[in-house]
Amino acid sequence: MNKKGARTPEPPYFAVIFSSQRTAVDEGYGPMADRMVELASGQPGFLGVESARGADGFGITVSYWASLEAIAGWKAHAEHRVAQAAGRAKWYGHFELRIARVERTGSGP
Amino acid sequence: MNKKGARTPEPPYFAVIFSSQRTAVDEGYGPMADRMVELASGQPGFLGVESARGADGFGITVSYWASLEAIAGWKAHAEHRVAQAAGRAKWYGHFELRIARVERTGSGP
Repeated sequence: MNKKGARTPEPPYFAVIFSSQRTAVDEGYGPMADRMVELASGQPGFLGVESARGADGFGITVSYWASLEAIAGWKAHAEHRVAQAAGRAKWYGHFELRIARVERTGSGP
Repeated sequence: MNKKGARTPEPPYFAVIFSSQRTAVDEGYGPMADRMVELASGQPGFLGVESARGADGFGITVSYWASLEAIAGWKAHAEHRVAQAAGRAKWYGHFELRIARVERTGSGP
């Protein structure tokens, strides 16, 4: 894929699908989001991340991980926990998080 | 979630994560995309869909399904197959498709 897409290995591996509606509150959102990508990228078991957000503020970020343990480690990371709390408090009107096991893949054209 | 997010049942269920880079070619893309959502929504085992695309043309669409059989049925749908061929030919510079089993969920704030 191009630079926006994640290069992932052969399945199985795991995906965290994070769907969110942004509020109108900025207050450091951009730098935080960039920092979280940088930080996640250095975590054990991180495989890749891809993200898109439309002009309406609805966005989807999918991060890919080698194991559920790797996801648990990232969730519990201290700096990530601070960002999670700020996200709940001001940046996200709502979000849904789904953890899934990737079983098959394809690509094109 | 708001109207942009999918309301899905308790896991397990399945997700099709479709990440794509749009070309500059329009030629009916919008109506096709709307039609595919309408058509998918009427398929057996369809649970929901959510989608986001940024100004850079990179987008993620995640559709949710009750079973792998339901996903296979949707993939093979005649009108969807026509859209898939057009997507490969003109609308997508590249795409990745991942089929995953959703195992855990969360939401907030």
